[in-house]
Amino acid sequence: MSASVSPLAPKSYPEMPSLRGVRMATAAAGIKYKNRTDVLLMVFDRPAAVAGVFTRSKCPSAPVDFCRANLPHGVARAVVVNSGNANAFTGMKGKAATALTAKSAAEAVGCGENEVYLASTGVIGEPLDATKFSGVLGDMNRTATGDFWQEAARAIMTTDTYPKVATRTAEIGGVKVTINGIAKGAGMIAPDMATMLSFVVTDADIAPAVLQNLLSAGVEPSFNSMTVDSDTSTSDTLMLFATGAAAGDGQARVESEDDPRLDGFRSALNDLLKNLATQVARDGEGATKMLEITVTGAESDAAAKTIALSIANSPLVKTAAAGEDANWGRIVMAVGKAGEAADRDRLAIWFGDVRVAVNGERDPDYSEEAASNVMKRQDIPVRVDIGLGNGRATVWTCDLTKEYVAINGDYRS
Amino acid sequence: MSASVSPLAPKSYPEMPSLRGVRMATAAAGIKYKNRTDVLLMVFDRPAAVAGVFTRSKCPSAPVDFCRANLPHGVARAVVVNSGNANAFTGMKGKAATALTAKSAAEAVGCGENEVYLASTGVIGEPLDATKFSGVLGDMNRTATGDFWQEAARAIMTTDTYPKVATRTAEIGGVKVTINGIAKGAGMIAPDMATMLSFVVTDADIAPAVLQNLLSAGVEPSFNSMTVDSDTSTSDTLMLFATGAAAGDGQARVESEDDPRLDGFRSALNDLLKNLATQVARDGEGATKMLEITVTGAESDAAAKTIALSIANSPLVKTAAAGEDANWGRIVMAVGKAGEAADRDRLAIWFGDVRVAVNGERDPDYSEEAASNVMKRQDIPVRVDIGLGNGRATVWTCDLTKEYVAINGDYRS
Repeated sequence: MSASVSPLAPKSYPEMPSLRGVRMATAAAGIKYKNRTDVLLMVFDRPAAVAGVFTRSKCPSAPVDFCRANLPHGVARAVVVNSGNANAFTGMKGKAATALTAKSAAEAVGCGENEVYLASTGVIGEPLDATKFSGVLGDMNRTATGDFWQEAARAIMTTDTYPKVATRTAEIGGVKVTINGIAKGAGMIAPDMATMLSFVVTDADIAPAVLQNLLSAGVEPSFNSMTVDSDTSTSDTLMLFATGAAAGDGQARVESEDDPRLDGFRSALNDLLKNLATQVARDGEGATKMLEITVTGAESDAAAKTIALSIANSPLVKTAAAGEDANWGRIVMAVGKAGEAADRDRLAIWFGDVRVAVNGERDPDYSEEAASNVMKRQDIPVRVDIGLGNGRATVWTCDLTKEYVAINGDYRS
Repeated sequence: MSASVSPLAPKSYPEMPSLRGVRMATAAAGIKYKNRTDVLLMVFDRPAAVAGVFTRSKCPSAPVDFCRANLPHGVARAVVVNSGNANAFTGMKGKAATALTAKSAAEAVGCGENEVYLASTGVIGEPLDATKFSGVLGDMNRTATGDFWQEAARAIMTTDTYPKVATRTAEIGGVKVTINGIAKGAGMIAPDMATMLSFVVTDADIAPAVLQNLLSAGVEPSFNSMTVDSDTSTSDTLMLFATGAAAGDGQARVESEDDPRLDGFRSALNDLLKNLATQVARDGEGATKMLEITVTGAESDAAAKTIALSIANSPLVKTAAAGEDANWGRIVMAVGKAGEAADRDRLAIWFGDVRVAVNGERDPDYSEEAASNVMKRQDIPVRVDIGLGNGRATVWTCDLTKEYVAINGDYRS
């Protein structure tokens, strides 16, 4: 954990309510460091519906493989998350470690191994000694409580400078339901990479297939629209659980993704996912600025997103932001390299409300001073209109600073 | 131009021979700065065959559009290159500027405007005042000489820390021919981006279509296998000219790309292109290390190149190199995110001769000290075997240092 908190951290944290149907506990299992909390257990006393989305890496970690295999079963009773070791690129030993962890968790909680979900973050390539879990999971199950969200968010932090929590409420058929979520950022810990992890739980009663549909759709404009440095972890994991406790208040189970009762829930979930995702971007390593990049007028929404991510991932755009430089030439460059249809002579570019380029050239009324003032803000909106169609997308990123290089390059010197 | 020369600069520069059929001159036209050489004129007294490859940007500069339009004519008499202004994203004014420059050059040299080629590097979005060329091109044509390669390479430098020249010889049908080339690097100049430009000239007598074929094939394993920061300029230009002067020594014109007499020439050209490309990468902004990344065992050569570029463009791999960190976990990450077929459990990774990972896990015989010693070198070979097929590619990049961020982010503060 870093000594200083990101300047982009939220000014205050929400009070996280307990959520019926889930209990949590943390422990220090000595995975990598002594006397440091490094394991989180989530327990669902009644089977929860489960959905997940995972890294697109072709070299995923063993826990990602394990979760993907269990997902068709659709029901969760326990989640074990550890920091200190990613159990990635660990060959057959990695598979053995996930099997042993699942066995320990199933015994502790009293469920099937196919009702257990796992996530690991930390060093790559080191075998994970899963025997360390066996001793602690039983105690953790006994002491787990519902009022534990802030502590859970803290327990899964690595290079994060602040814990990431969010909560929302919605109604399903007149019954109030709650959604709580935690996340940790994509950062590095010596000597290897860490991971983006997020766990979201609701007390709504929703069938697994519907839950998966909601999550797969919700991840696109949130976590999949957020980039810190364009590098994809082997272990990225986002899971959504529905405990179904709201059934006790008379909420009839949602069995279809077209159920109109889902509208409010879907909005609340998407809002929470976006909030968690931007919290991750705001804690990007070395970040001092947050860029919200909106592309309009592309040939399609997908094309708009490709262009927006090309801008967001450009080292030259990100270093310009760090330097508070309204460098729209680099935006043009990033639009051009994205590979999607673009017509130089139709492009328009704004920093905040300041239009700096229009019709393929510098805006004749462009004020360098006004644009520079926008760049001095902590939150910088960038908009690019491609002028070809109706495709639209918004993505978020942070700036690229010397501190990023220091965090990721200096630790061995 | 930077005050200090890159630590990766060549220890010595080749003597550049004159090349029959081409003359060059430079001048200070005051494009952006006073009293600074900012225009290069190349003159072919007899029409030279011409080939070109250009940026893949969807928002190319006006000179790139101009060159592409002239290329089917196949013959060049003059090349005008300026620094200080990229004439990119300048709308209709940009087109007017290329037309006026071409007219001035055609008048100065006495040729058609479709025999003129143009390249510009410097600020984006500023209209280029092409009237400044009219006054100087006539004089430049009168004073242009053949023995001017080093000066020409210097005249097109922007943030380059050293001039990039290379020369090779070959035989075509028993007649000795020479190939000379110059290049400038992809770097930034305040307040906008610069460009990769390279001009290669041979005295061989080769038909334009054959020349284009040679260049299009030669650019793939050279300039298109080299990345500094993954950002593509609006203006990248690589041109190859054949003056045909060797016809005077009895070299019969090459009319077919399958002509076996081309073998030696093709090798010499490819070697020269690779040399110039690596010189550009070695002068990457802030670079202290050169990485040669070879991927073997991929499903195809194209897949190998995609994976190699994913490694080369990863900020985490590049910062690890800057920190002299043998961080093979980040290599696994970059392989995984490339999107090409990969099997985690077949991967093997080497730094230099040190195999750090094999069969999807850490090499049991891996010595951290030996790997660290490789990382201390200025030139670091990285090899990844995917274990799936016979696809192979090699790419080059430099490390990502705080100095890169400073060069691209600090100049306005």
